[in-house]
Amino acid sequence: MIYPVILCGGSGTRLWPRSRKTLPKPFLPLVGEQTLFEQTLARCADPALFAAPIVVTGAAHLEHVEAQSAGHAGTAIIVEPEAKNTAPAIALAAMRLPADAVMLVCPSDHYIADVAAFRKAAVTAAELAAKDFMVSFGITPTAPETGFGYIKRGEALGPGFAVERFVEKPDLARAVQFLADGSYSWNGGIFAFRAGALVAELQAHRPAMAKSVAEAVERGTQEDHLFHPDGDAFAAIKGDSIDYAVMENTSSAAMVPVAMGWSDIGNWHALRDAREADVSGNNVRGNAELVDCSGVLVESDGPRVSAIGLSDIAIVVDGDEVLVTSMLGTQKVGKLGGASNQ
Amino acid sequence: MIYPVILCGGSGTRLWPRSRKTLPKPFLPLVGEQTLFEQTLARCADPALFAAPIVVTGAAHLEHVEAQSAGHAGTAIIVEPEAKNTAPAIALAAMRLPADAVMLVCPSDHYIADVAAFRKAAVTAAELAAKDFMVSFGITPTAPETGFGYIKRGEALGPGFAVERFVEKPDLARAVQFLADGSYSWNGGIFAFRAGALVAELQAHRPAMAKSVAEAVERGTQEDHLFHPDGDAFAAIKGDSIDYAVMENTSSAAMVPVAMGWSDIGNWHALRDAREADVSGNNVRGNAELVDCSGVLVESDGPRVSAIGLSDIAIVVDGDEVLVTSMLGTQKVGKLGGASNQ
Repeated sequence: MIYPVILCGGSGTRLWPRSRKTLPKPFLPLVGEQTLFEQTLARCADPALFAAPIVVTGAAHLEHVEAQSAGHAGTAIIVEPEAKNTAPAIALAAMRLPADAVMLVCPSDHYIADVAAFRKAAVTAAELAAKDFMVSFGITPTAPETGFGYIKRGEALGPGFAVERFVEKPDLARAVQFLADGSYSWNGGIFAFRAGALVAELQAHRPAMAKSVAEAVERGTQEDHLFHPDGDAFAAIKGDSIDYAVMENTSSAAMVPVAMGWSDIGNWHALRDAREADVSGNNVRGNAELVDCSGVLVESDGPRVSAIGLSDIAIVVDGDEVLVTSMLGTQKVGKLGGASNQ
Repeated sequence: MIYPVILCGGSGTRLWPRSRKTLPKPFLPLVGEQTLFEQTLARCADPALFAAPIVVTGAAHLEHVEAQSAGHAGTAIIVEPEAKNTAPAIALAAMRLPADAVMLVCPSDHYIADVAAFRKAAVTAAELAAKDFMVSFGITPTAPETGFGYIKRGEALGPGFAVERFVEKPDLARAVQFLADGSYSWNGGIFAFRAGALVAELQAHRPAMAKSVAEAVERGTQEDHLFHPDGDAFAAIKGDSIDYAVMENTSSAAMVPVAMGWSDIGNWHALRDAREADVSGNNVRGNAELVDCSGVLVESDGPRVSAIGLSDIAIVVDGDEVLVTSMLGTQKVGKLGGASNQ
């Protein structure tokens, strides 16, 4: 049995103005009818493989988490007193689970087209995790992306591989080289750990963090399906990512390669590519008329959008905000005044 | 004394969605603070040169005409029973004026940057019109436009020139040739006529139209400053432009060359070029943030527009409509569903 641990935070400024502080990316139906969070829950809802999920989130998102997880009986929610990056969030879940439970850590704001491939990789990753490997999903890269970290695989471990090394976001030349090399995968932020093994690694590499998380759990309070870690203990933590805190320090890193139509939906460009397009490569949600357009994404919550003669442009209308950006420009959306001063 | 005759009709679909059936182009402050109609009135408001204006319009626009001409004492308004193109509209005014009055026919939806040059040309045109020439303003062309008719000048007439011929909208190759030739001007739809001479020419070339307009005037009714031509008589008219009905048939065509920063504001591209731009060639009206943009026009009646990485694109937000078009695409705006089904 695999315990899904779903991390549900983030402000999602890069998909502004659709994604807003009050209703960020995980809770929006960006691809398909369901929200990304609902899809994440659904992927882990096979009772033959998965236990009921544990969601780690903040008070700001609790209402959305509860509403959208209502259909998944037994969902446990850990309400982080504040955001401290991924390592403490994952450690909270690990310390709430039996030491022998195998947990599968999943971001709640990614899109995965091929659920069967995801589940197959989850089973493989769980096998390795049961042997105390710290396991990353290694997403088979489909483009020389410079926005992701990479994982270089090492020797085969039967199922999966050892990790030779983790690589920070490369420049384009290196990304092209990684793609050609064939032994590099994207680090998609999906991990499998035995709970006790993860806690032990954290104690070894981030002892202060491990101690504070343990205290926060020990002094925490349960309220129905909600667990509230102690705020004072949690406040003492120096936030860090699981990559820096554990994955790059452990001697037991493993990876499971997987091609599953994954996208982090990291910006409007990625969203356009994840959605189904018409013959001209356009994708429209809402009322729109497109003339002589190709590769255009239109997303409108009401007003009609009329577009003429555009290529590779995203047009997003949401409330009192209108965003028009080249696909290349989508990387800068988070720095717009509207996105950063919500 | 010159009698301004201001033609105020048209639906203005090419500047949709800002220009709408209920509030079309002449009545919008598209360049500067005043509307194009107000600017047209103001250009002809010098009492040393001009008599009070006659505005020819339809019932649909009467409210806007009255509101925006309120500051011009003595304005007479002829309310056309229906639109019959420019020849009948101009003939209505001519038949309401003394035969010796020199009229200056002005569209109400063009922009003219250099008012002094306009007035100087008006005086020259009036001199020729007083000698019974049918006079066109010949706008000095600044680009090989294919959307305008051209006037080829002939022999000098002292002030102004004879017209060698009128040329229909050319293709690009011919337009380039015209520009290089130097003897071609744009036909901007601004004309000077002695009222009696215009009526005589119309009687010669469009006798049925002349007769119907005369009847419509004879049986018309005056109501304060409004004159209502008789609807039945006017309905019998086969509509035609002044160019086809008179200018291309008369043996007395003359032209006055003028460079006056003229634009017909025929589409969003023309409007962008008529407005003052910032150092990147962008022009913004309304709440907007532009990043890595050049040659971008933004016009918003409320929502904030955020734009990234765009070149030569117009973004127009008006009520429940959002238009995003390449500058080349602005020619197709009038054919959009939104523009044609208002």
